[in-house]
Amino acid sequence: MKNKILLAIADGLGDRPVECLGGKTPLEYAKKPTLDDLAANGSSGIMDLYKLGTPVGTDLGHMLLFGYDYTEYPGRGPIEAFGEGLELEAGDVAFRVNFATVDSELVVVDRRAGRIRKDTDKLALSLNGMQIEDVKVIFKEATEHRAVLILRGPGLSQDISDTDPKVEAVKYKEAKATTPTPEAEKTVRILNQFLLNAHKMLLQHPVNKEREAAGEKPANFILTRGAGIMPNLRKTADDLKIRAACVAAESTVLGAARLAGITPITDPRFTGNIDTDIALKAKTAVDALKENDFVVLHFKATDLMGHDNDPQGKVNAVETFDKMLGFVMEGLSAIEENVIVALGADHSTPCERREHSGDPVPVVISGKNIRKDGITTYDEMAAARGGLNRINANMFFNYLMDYLEATKKVGN
Amino acid sequence: MKNKILLAIADGLGDRPVECLGGKTPLEYAKKPTLDDLAANGSSGIMDLYKLGTPVGTDLGHMLLFGYDYTEYPGRGPIEAFGEGLELEAGDVAFRVNFATVDSELVVVDRRAGRIRKDTDKLALSLNGMQIEDVKVIFKEATEHRAVLILRGPGLSQDISDTDPKVEAVKYKEAKATTPTPEAEKTVRILNQFLLNAHKMLLQHPVNKEREAAGEKPANFILTRGAGIMPNLRKTADDLKIRAACVAAESTVLGAARLAGITPITDPRFTGNIDTDIALKAKTAVDALKENDFVVLHFKATDLMGHDNDPQGKVNAVETFDKMLGFVMEGLSAIEENVIVALGADHSTPCERREHSGDPVPVVISGKNIRKDGITTYDEMAAARGGLNRINANMFFNYLMDYLEATKKVGN
Repeated sequence: MKNKILLAIADGLGDRPVECLGGKTPLEYAKKPTLDDLAANGSSGIMDLYKLGTPVGTDLGHMLLFGYDYTEYPGRGPIEAFGEGLELEAGDVAFRVNFATVDSELVVVDRRAGRIRKDTDKLALSLNGMQIEDVKVIFKEATEHRAVLILRGPGLSQDISDTDPKVEAVKYKEAKATTPTPEAEKTVRILNQFLLNAHKMLLQHPVNKEREAAGEKPANFILTRGAGIMPNLRKTADDLKIRAACVAAESTVLGAARLAGITPITDPRFTGNIDTDIALKAKTAVDALKENDFVVLHFKATDLMGHDNDPQGKVNAVETFDKMLGFVMEGLSAIEENVIVALGADHSTPCERREHSGDPVPVVISGKNIRKDGITTYDEMAAARGGLNRINANMFFNYLMDYLEATKKVGN
Repeated sequence: MKNKILLAIADGLGDRPVECLGGKTPLEYAKKPTLDDLAANGSSGIMDLYKLGTPVGTDLGHMLLFGYDYTEYPGRGPIEAFGEGLELEAGDVAFRVNFATVDSELVVVDRRAGRIRKDTDKLALSLNGMQIEDVKVIFKEATEHRAVLILRGPGLSQDISDTDPKVEAVKYKEAKATTPTPEAEKTVRILNQFLLNAHKMLLQHPVNKEREAAGEKPANFILTRGAGIMPNLRKTADDLKIRAACVAAESTVLGAARLAGITPITDPRFTGNIDTDIALKAKTAVDALKENDFVVLHFKATDLMGHDNDPQGKVNAVETFDKMLGFVMEGLSAIEENVIVALGADHSTPCERREHSGDPVPVVISGKNIRKDGITTYDEMAAARGGLNRINANMFFNYLMDYLEATKKVGN
């Protein structure tokens, strides 16, 4: 019987010793019987995503885990657009955007338009399809105050500054070219025109009239960031001829998956936080193994707790991740497939740093046909003594693909 | 006294846990006192040939172990030709070929001409030297039904399909260009003409008349595969100014050695299987150390047992390899030289996979002047805890060459 693979990713898992945890990392401190069992039944190692000491974002981290080279990174905009289900064409420029509130002087009063959650689809609809010169505007709402903007037309560039000032009580920033090319100048001209057109239309929009009548801040402006041009990107899963799926809540992860030809699977009960429905997530992943060779199961809360410098919260997140893997192992015991379970992370988010760091992350590959290295716990330092030694994300992915017999022999 | 090196290669050695061996790999399961002693007396590590997760063939695996970069791989044809002792010139196109039997419709009746073993030298002689346009044909018999074909002339290409249909009861395949270049078209034209000319000559050949009279299948056709063009390849051993030899049975390994400027040494008693004469092989290798700085001693049976999914057979093969190393150590104790003994493999061939895999292989470098890392057994997982950590084949070769003081200092 051919192998199948379930790869569970705990976002931002890696950490550093924390004083209030007795000098242990949250992963060393947590009770995690299932993760430890997985380590005991296979090979551990430490993994650099890109290179030791260079932090990566969640988007690039997942692209690397899905077999891309870091030179193929197209910027955050295209990945978010993919995560929202939009089809990008080569040459499209995509932006992550917020609905925001500005006053009559175009000073930003609220970068998130009172954290608007309702009717953004109607607002988006009024902007979608706008034509400026020979460029078509594609606009789609995302979660809460977020949305995706795509400019589609000839001769555009991603070399253009953010219009989001990142702080409030200042005027929005007009877009500027960051390289002096005709393409960047054209993109700047189109985008700045779009912002003013959109402002005019949003001011008149019934949804905003209602919001103002109810004493809520109107979503009357669009702030943009993360411009990225869509390259002619290969789909790694298609290249390898594998059937793959990714179970996640976060649009960044779902977007990186779709980019790679990995089918995104999500559900409103997957929250991207500690309250996510782990039983349902585990069941969804195990079910997905019927139709797929490679299933990714993503868990976000570990990263959030690192960003919040909440070591005890990160311990809880690890223990929740462990429980989710418990449900996975229970589910796997009831199916016929020979499933190799791998553990990984897209980067470290040390509590003390409150940001991603370039520390390596611990990985495990586990199953009856995986070499046993004698490591019996899953944590940063146990993994460093493991049988995989030190690898990078591309080697990790390539090694998993070899267990699917999807990599090609070189030579004869 | 300068160091000398004996590198013993167990082909396809690396494996995965096997249920019928109690979850051990064949190497972990086998009794192998000499290999364990060698590990205890030096440094161990795990080695990726090309990269983790990408399987390599025996030909490329040995080229990498002999110091080549994977980009220098010329295809199987030239390596086999070298293994048969032919001298290739840059631009020559070499093919692996079979003597076969076809009927009057050119349908393949037997891809191996009744496994012909006798008089193929006489058949080869009748084809060797044929001229087609400005291309000279070089043809030499190899073991059993196998032979080597070389086309020598201006403007040839390796981008040409196999004419061996791989199955019987169908017509041989006419060669086709796999890229639309004038060079490929020319090579196709010459090769197709050669096949018909050869058929005509073989039909009349006295050896075939005799075979038919004796009720045997005539070797009346040539089937080709693995076209490769000979690049202007450096000889790694010559570049390093070392005197090197390779003791082996298999023409692929002998060919990779000759490519590198490593003198091939073989004998009919070296069978490339479990019944190979290990005492003679060991003696031949030890004797070769008198005239050489670097001697490679190759052992094939471990790979065969992996391909056959025969875990107990692979255990026996490992134990035979161990005995061969026992003879080597006995031989070395009787000579004056200071010999470092290294253990390696050209790839893993896990029994469960029945094919080469991208799993790393265990390596050892052993001798009184090699750092002692405390590892006392030779197997996949002990090696992963060793002092060399994780290296690749080029690093391994380069490190050995440094013990011969053959690598050049960079900087001052």
